[in-house]
Amino acid sequence: MFRLGMLTSGGDCQALNAAMRGVVKTLCEKRDDVEIYGFQDGYKGLIYSNFKMLTAKDFSGILTMGGTILGTSRQPFKLMRVPDENGLDKVEAMKHTYHKLNLDCLVILGGNGTHKSANMLREEGLNVVTLPKTIDNDLWGTDMTFGFQSAVDIATDTIDRIHTTATSHSRVFIVEVMGHKVGWVTLHAGIAGGADIILLPEIPYDIDVIAEAINKRGKAGKHFTIIAVAEGAISKEDAKLSKKDLKAKKAKEKYPSVAYELAEKVQKKTDQEVRITVPGHTQRGGSPCAYDRVLATRLGAAAAEAILDSDFGNMLGVKNNKIVRIPLEEVAGKLKYVDPESEIVHEAKLAGISFGDE
Amino acid sequence: MFRLGMLTSGGDCQALNAAMRGVVKTLCEKRDDVEIYGFQDGYKGLIYSNFKMLTAKDFSGILTMGGTILGTSRQPFKLMRVPDENGLDKVEAMKHTYHKLNLDCLVILGGNGTHKSANMLREEGLNVVTLPKTIDNDLWGTDMTFGFQSAVDIATDTIDRIHTTATSHSRVFIVEVMGHKVGWVTLHAGIAGGADIILLPEIPYDIDVIAEAINKRGKAGKHFTIIAVAEGAISKEDAKLSKKDLKAKKAKEKYPSVAYELAEKVQKKTDQEVRITVPGHTQRGGSPCAYDRVLATRLGAAAAEAILDSDFGNMLGVKNNKIVRIPLEEVAGKLKYVDPESEIVHEAKLAGISFGDE
Amino acid sequence: MFRLGMLTSGGDCQALNAAMRGVVKTLCEKRDDVEIYGFQDGYKGLIYSNFKMLTAKDFSGILTMGGTILGTSRQPFKLMRVPDENGLDKVEAMKHTYHKLNLDCLVILGGNGTHKSANMLREEGLNVVTLPKTIDNDLWGTDMTFGFQSAVDIATDTIDRIHTTATSHSRVFIVEVMGHKVGWVTLHAGIAGGADIILLPEIPYDIDVIAEAINKRGKAGKHFTIIAVAEGAISKEDAKLSKKDLKAKKAKEKYPSVAYELAEKVQKKTDQEVRITVPGHTQRGGSPCAYDRVLATRLGAAAAEAILDSDFGNMLGVKNNKIVRIPLEEVAGKLKYVDPESEIVHEAKLAGISFGDE
Amino acid sequence: MFRLGMLTSGGDCQALNAAMRGVVKTLCEKRDDVEIYGFQDGYKGLIYSNFKMLTAKDFSGILTMGGTILGTSRQPFKLMRVPDENGLDKVEAMKHTYHKLNLDCLVILGGNGTHKSANMLREEGLNVVTLPKTIDNDLWGTDMTFGFQSAVDIATDTIDRIHTTATSHSRVFIVEVMGHKVGWVTLHAGIAGGADIILLPEIPYDIDVIAEAINKRGKAGKHFTIIAVAEGAISKEDAKLSKKDLKAKKAKEKYPSVAYELAEKVQKKTDQEVRITVPGHTQRGGSPCAYDRVLATRLGAAAAEAILDSDFGNMLGVKNNKIVRIPLEEVAGKLKYVDPESEIVHEAKLAGISFGDE
Repeated sequence: MFRLGMLTSGGDCQALNAAMRGVVKTLCEKRDDVEIYGFQDGYKGLIYSNFKMLTAKDFSGILTMGGTILGTSRQPFKLMRVPDENGLDKVEAMKHTYHKLNLDCLVILGGNGTHKSANMLREEGLNVVTLPKTIDNDLWGTDMTFGFQSAVDIATDTIDRIHTTATSHSRVFIVEVMGHKVGWVTLHAGIAGGADIILLPEIPYDIDVIAEAINKRGKAGKHFTIIAVAEGAISKEDAKLSKKDLKAKKAKEKYPSVAYELAEKVQKKTDQEVRITVPGHTQRGGSPCAYDRVLATRLGAAAAEAILDSDFGNMLGVKNNKIVRIPLEEVAGKLKYVDPESEIVHEAKLAGISFGDE
Repeated sequence: MFRLGMLTSGGDCQALNAAMRGVVKTLCEKRDDVEIYGFQDGYKGLIYSNFKMLTAKDFSGILTMGGTILGTSRQPFKLMRVPDENGLDKVEAMKHTYHKLNLDCLVILGGNGTHKSANMLREEGLNVVTLPKTIDNDLWGTDMTFGFQSAVDIATDTIDRIHTTATSHSRVFIVEVMGHKVGWVTLHAGIAGGADIILLPEIPYDIDVIAEAINKRGKAGKHFTIIAVAEGAISKEDAKLSKKDLKAKKAKEKYPSVAYELAEKVQKKTDQEVRITVPGHTQRGGSPCAYDRVLATRLGAAAAEAILDSDFGNMLGVKNNKIVRIPLEEVAGKLKYVDPESEIVHEAKLAGISFGDE
Repeated sequence: MFRLGMLTSGGDCQALNAAMRGVVKTLCEKRDDVEIYGFQDGYKGLIYSNFKMLTAKDFSGILTMGGTILGTSRQPFKLMRVPDENGLDKVEAMKHTYHKLNLDCLVILGGNGTHKSANMLREEGLNVVTLPKTIDNDLWGTDMTFGFQSAVDIATDTIDRIHTTATSHSRVFIVEVMGHKVGWVTLHAGIAGGADIILLPEIPYDIDVIAEAINKRGKAGKHFTIIAVAEGAISKEDAKLSKKDLKAKKAKEKYPSVAYELAEKVQKKTDQEVRITVPGHTQRGGSPCAYDRVLATRLGAAAAEAILDSDFGNMLGVKNNKIVRIPLEEVAGKLKYVDPESEIVHEAKLAGISFGDE
Repeated sequence: MFRLGMLTSGGDCQALNAAMRGVVKTLCEKRDDVEIYGFQDGYKGLIYSNFKMLTAKDFSGILTMGGTILGTSRQPFKLMRVPDENGLDKVEAMKHTYHKLNLDCLVILGGNGTHKSANMLREEGLNVVTLPKTIDNDLWGTDMTFGFQSAVDIATDTIDRIHTTATSHSRVFIVEVMGHKVGWVTLHAGIAGGADIILLPEIPYDIDVIAEAINKRGKAGKHFTIIAVAEGAISKEDAKLSKKDLKAKKAKEKYPSVAYELAEKVQKKTDQEVRITVPGHTQRGGSPCAYDRVLATRLGAAAAEAILDSDFGNMLGVKNNKIVRIPLEEVAGKLKYVDPESEIVHEAKLAGISFGDE
């Protein structure tokens, strides 16, 4: 008997179900003695031993479904060692569940925070294999995460729709794209949607540079401008502040989100009408795109293969188009940022896109 | 020689180009002496005699294009008789342009405000034919306007995407749908997207009824709730205020939009996490859906037929699946609201949707 | 206890699940003693007493799903009275199942053939309520069936994609749209997709008229032509043949489908390269469009209301935007054809579309 | 003055316009003395000196448009040295046009055949830079071509729609995907769409293996099977025939396409109903997906950079996520096939997909 535990943690995204299906289909092709324990709502299910017994059939027909059939929740890493309201040590509770159920392995799907906890469970001696899920594409150790391309598609579709309105009216449109710490979705959707200005957390902006780019367009007879801005985009002045001072400043300004702050600044500097669109959570919803389904299926199959090899403690990722196993200790706690000097940013600038920095 | 003037006014929406194409293709099939004057940016182009000479070719290939090739702008009816900054009387200026160019007819595409101005031009003796454009579907005299079904599709897609996230997390999601005065898009997208609660300007809500509906779902094991709310949705208390008092109250509260106000109230009453999504201008952008293209093409062809009949002063509309000509004086200044007692609201309630009213 | 039987019959289409959800949600809102028997694979399930017991929960989350959770099959009306391979009389078997299970009512979702059988069951004394499902929109007694608008969307999308290729190459493109007996989908998708020529079963074509339309476009500098042809489109000569002679002719010619026949004729007459696209079954697959979801939900709720009223023997349909109950004996055995003299055909011709007839 | 010639050749595909826009935007950002000669309908325009003078404005707003604003045609490489009907040597004619117009460089966008001709022009001394356009993804020297991912999206959408019908009926569905020589689109769309069997030109199939896979599904309670088959898929027996014998056999059998041949074989072997869907040219039409827009924009910008560097004779491609310049002599005349032993095929097999070979 092979006892497989599985959980999805953090914000949901596209292709979680596709990836789990890949794991289960592969395992059940190779062995007919697999027992699957699906923990509910992320680590919470492991902590409180809340699970469903599943079979291969439960993973049939879910390739195209958004969300996760296991449910998910956020369990911040820094609270993992903090006892719960009943004094329960969460890490010990997870280990207890694992051993009580006599699990052979735990497959964990998640993003950055999830991987820190997964690495801790590995250190505690559990057999862990992980899969890189996040629309943000910010996981260290893999070129690509599933969810990312689907999110890019949705954000691009938003910019496309705004484009038709923009060309009919003369205005500045701001589309706020998901990404608090990294700008991958904004960068790709901005290029794909034909945004004129792209603002990323990794490249602090100067409002005067933005205003100049808008005015330059006006002089060239283009009376609208589309700005794709990541949730975490930051001005050059704010980038110089300490974390604490920045937090205090934001608390005082009370903008609902960065788009509102930017809109106010642009309006002041250019005297143009500004409109805001925030696609928000739609970016992580709906059926995964073909790209993500292929990636998730491949990673899922490769995870099962690693399990069959009894090779634990890795995240499955992709490097130069090859599926690779990356040690969890290399992945945990590191973020993959957009490099301001990277080729793609360079090419985008060549093609006339302003990043508000120069 | 037949001289046709054409303009699009108000917010842009889907199928404006499709409708103009229908007019021009039909006219140019029947007569080969048509001269087309495309006024730029709505009534503004007529006021300041800013136009492009167009041919049938310019209307080829635009069936599927969002926006309007003529550009558009909002020219509030109540400012029409107010002289511009140079003292120019706008109505006289429009008449002047019309007569100077020796136009035989003016085709005007627009929504509610646009029709008030169009009717005024008719009263001033111009030959006017209009087409009902608005995502709001609030034009009196027609069962359906083009743009509406496309907007419903987009708002529904938004709710669909939110659904996959909602089922993976346990939360209340609020989707704010366009419609300041009327709730047509919210009503249809809410039903189509499977919203649990639909809030419309026409049916003032009671926050306690909403909280009860959410709690009832929780008791039935459904730990998420989706609320589709129209921009102009209003509480029962606010509905009792005078216009002036309401405006003052809103100014004081400073919510970015209704969704934020509702979110705060729901959070207080139910202690659930609430998330907001505002698709905003995307609802009026992008390629029109098949339904709108058929409707716009039919209305455009019918408008051309009316012109060939020298039958002016009407809006083309649809009544019980028939294309009809409705006198502008009947249309102007009236809104078509969702009737709280209507069949569709009744059926939606039957199927378990709460409108927050009872 | 209220015992509800339900089945879906004939080819699958979009919004079957949405309609069943509407029925069940409404019934279960009003009564808490409903028992649901879901017969498998259409009438077959009723004949062989093959069913699943379902609850309201089984109908949760299926609003957006294509296909039918009950499965479906074709059971031709004319074979209903023909005993099966074991000598079983199918009609008696269906009555037996109905009475054995002590059903209070049977909800049947289907198209034209399905309604003939449903009417027969009514005549045999069963309480039957039906819902109009078909992409063909050919059911008598209702302005609209669910599935139709979704199919139009898909066929239109196909024409849209062909358009971009067509404008890049100089060719004739034939898109074959579903519809053996009626041309509704082809008519609407043809107009929506900007087809230059539309060929319907109801309007026999003359190949010389088609060739002339293509050549006329060439002279006007348009080097591609898009033809939307219904599966059952027919030439004027073939339309004159007896059913038997026509069948013999078709059997001899052996074209895979009408598009291949037409392609050969067009190529001969115009010496242009011709390409064929047959979207086929995709037209009945995938998630229903917003329009169909609203329609299906409304009809489902109205069907439940009729059941609660103990008003049986009707199909729920829509007439002039009102939901109505139409006696099954009026519906059964009649088809709703495209009228060649109708307003929509007239308007399409005005806008320059050729129907190959004149 | 910098004189840039540009042409698109071969079948059209998505993102041709996006790539040309990338080239032009970049060049015109860096130099303001660029003259653009857009040759019409591929090499034909260069041969017969048929071109349009274009400006940066002509490339504005085309990022999202399918097809190519320059038109395209197929000009087989092997006929390039064959004089035309007036005795004109085509290669000399192209050189003549190039020198007569005093071009500084020629940007050529195309697939495999196009690159052979482009390399010949390079050998003849012209400054050539090329971009890898093809939905087939079969160009040697680049990991990815633009058009590919968009085609995968469309083919996947087709399989998705068929899936809902397949689960409602019990049948075998065959979806024929583009790819005469290589199976990239079929492989990716097959995995993404959840096909049960994938048949590629690179992996000859055994009909008995296919029948067994279908029957195995039946025994596991899955009564439908979806087969994704590339246009050029071939049986093991046919793969053994000489080219000439195979051609003769195909001519005799007269199947409209491979799907019809396969359908007949499957029906015979399994006694199951079989349905065919051929999305055909839709796979190369419509707006490019976000992935292709980003790729095309990057490659376009990089091509302009190569031009500014006066570095000619290369195709721009992508290798391990880096944009690279690959000498045309390395690219010309070679195809990039799916390796039957590759990682992705291995993973697909792990996840239970049959390739009909074992």
